[in-house]
Amino acid sequence: MEERTEIASLGEFGLIDHLTANNEIRNSSTILSIGDDAAVIDHFGRQTVISTDLLLEGIHFDLSYTPLKHLGYKAVVVNLSDIYAMNAIPTQIVLSIGFSNRFSVEALDEFYEGVYTACDKYNVDLVGGDTSTSLRGFVISITAIGEVEPDSFVKRSGAKPNDLICVSGELGGSFLGLTILEREKKIFEETGSQPDLEGQAYNVGRLLKPEARKDIIEYFAEAEIIPTSMLDISDGLSSDLLHICKQSNTGCVLYEDKLPMNDDMKDFAYKLQLDPTACALSGGEDYELLFTVPQSDYEKIRLNPGISIIGYMTEFAEGKNIITRGGNKHELVAQGWNHAKNK
Amino acid sequence: MEERTEIASLGEFGLIDHLTANNEIRNSSTILSIGDDAAVIDHFGRQTVISTDLLLEGIHFDLSYTPLKHLGYKAVVVNLSDIYAMNAIPTQIVLSIGFSNRFSVEALDEFYEGVYTACDKYNVDLVGGDTSTSLRGFVISITAIGEVEPDSFVKRSGAKPNDLICVSGELGGSFLGLTILEREKKIFEETGSQPDLEGQAYNVGRLLKPEARKDIIEYFAEAEIIPTSMLDISDGLSSDLLHICKQSNTGCVLYEDKLPMNDDMKDFAYKLQLDPTACALSGGEDYELLFTVPQSDYEKIRLNPGISIIGYMTEFAEGKNIITRGGNKHELVAQGWNHAKNK
Repeated sequence: MEERTEIASLGEFGLIDHLTANNEIRNSSTILSIGDDAAVIDHFGRQTVISTDLLLEGIHFDLSYTPLKHLGYKAVVVNLSDIYAMNAIPTQIVLSIGFSNRFSVEALDEFYEGVYTACDKYNVDLVGGDTSTSLRGFVISITAIGEVEPDSFVKRSGAKPNDLICVSGELGGSFLGLTILEREKKIFEETGSQPDLEGQAYNVGRLLKPEARKDIIEYFAEAEIIPTSMLDISDGLSSDLLHICKQSNTGCVLYEDKLPMNDDMKDFAYKLQLDPTACALSGGEDYELLFTVPQSDYEKIRLNPGISIIGYMTEFAEGKNIITRGGNKHELVAQGWNHAKNK
Repeated sequence: MEERTEIASLGEFGLIDHLTANNEIRNSSTILSIGDDAAVIDHFGRQTVISTDLLLEGIHFDLSYTPLKHLGYKAVVVNLSDIYAMNAIPTQIVLSIGFSNRFSVEALDEFYEGVYTACDKYNVDLVGGDTSTSLRGFVISITAIGEVEPDSFVKRSGAKPNDLICVSGELGGSFLGLTILEREKKIFEETGSQPDLEGQAYNVGRLLKPEARKDIIEYFAEAEIIPTSMLDISDGLSSDLLHICKQSNTGCVLYEDKLPMNDDMKDFAYKLQLDPTACALSGGEDYELLFTVPQSDYEKIRLNPGISIIGYMTEFAEGKNIITRGGNKHELVAQGWNHAKNK
């Protein structure tokens, strides 16, 4: 039988000590970490970037198919992704959790194992937080802090007509991962059959263990690229590109045949009689970077195989369009990705 | 009939626009605010202080007797209190909320009215956040950011034997406010009688609309006082003083007759046959500052009528004690204040 230590046996302060006993400090900017009223950070000479996310059980994640370790890892990564999307480097996080009495110390340990694995991989320090009981459901709130050279942060609003539209990695996998897991959950609930995830490592992995594109931000620094606009794709490519267009006051042209798609994503989409392009355009939670650069950066962008050029920005009056494989032009619409609606 | 606008009628982005339409920027350090992946802050030449709190309906607050406007105000204030407790000045907050479909746009407006009132009063900028639906219950997560002159932040661990123990304001009121409201709620549930809060403005106000002691931090700067240790009282004086002793590796002596107590607090405590001293020692959520200063600061401290000197620190070996009015010495114990246990 698995060990189960009741959280009440440690007490609030005992629990915090337990969960943070092996917490490491990796950044010299971390002056004071966990254990006081607040943490202290020294970003002298750099600007501080801050972003926050709230993740609620039953809305943003389903513990029936999400291992707690993966959840801890992902909760951190999606926040860091927002910091990278500013062309900044994350340095610290604070993490609050609320949990009901169905959670054991071992369960929280698993969650924190994922948190610490992400902190280690992305070289960020966990410097504070709050733990609380909840009446029901697991609640996660993470705020990430980063740093950026003065005024070299990248907003959503700086894209110009003729800028190239670029995206890192591949699109649509996370949405299909969710679709598979929801389907298998339903089958299990109805028939008791164990999940069949044969050949689904790619799509499921994209959902449960996404990565933030630290490497792309490092490439920008190395190649001296400063995008004119950028965000990370959480709602879906269409919806997020329309955000950039709105905030930059531009139009855009996307090319269907340029959208980066993995074969495993396409194969499974066909199996479900879904259009892979629709998955790439509207599937959310890919956490890839969507950004624009001036045409003069074309050669630099081309050198990075992890980046695809998928279109270009236009004047506002030209609208937001996608050119299909067949050469037809359609208006780009935001299907979006609404966690609540997906349930 | 009260107006009720469904949140769904605005959509997620419409709701964010609506709630943040009148958001003001008050600090020149706020470089980029709401509307991007992250906010950007410029604390050049100062260190950044960060603290976070998670507030859950049914654990930390009860909407049956907590007006949403007060809740918004308090949620901000308790976070700012942590920043002041570092001897720092809060400059920005990020705010995430999760709400079920029982909430209307008007209800969220009320909550934000309280948030903005607190931002205005304490001169902080709301620079980001996250909004989400929840399956049930109202979830609030706030992270506060502040700034401090390099290395003039105050930790819990710097108290020395013979330092004076000081506290701002008065103690125990918030606990009695909670006791009254819980009692009236029970009576209402059992008999339908309307709450009788006659003469309870002080205690109820201490619970529902606490203030953070900005004025004390300003006085420190003015009088050139740097406390040797400090925290804000959220768990209760005993419990929080024991934190300072533990982290500073000292003992302490408190004097019962020096504990600052309001007459309304004492009167109601007697009415309930409670010991006002116990309320002052163990009642939580007072959000007063508890700090230590060297004896050489005695004259400076004495000049501020908002500060009481309640004891002194000792060597660790002398233990943690309270001297009663009758002159007896008792060991100081942490009753603590555990939201979950109070329910």
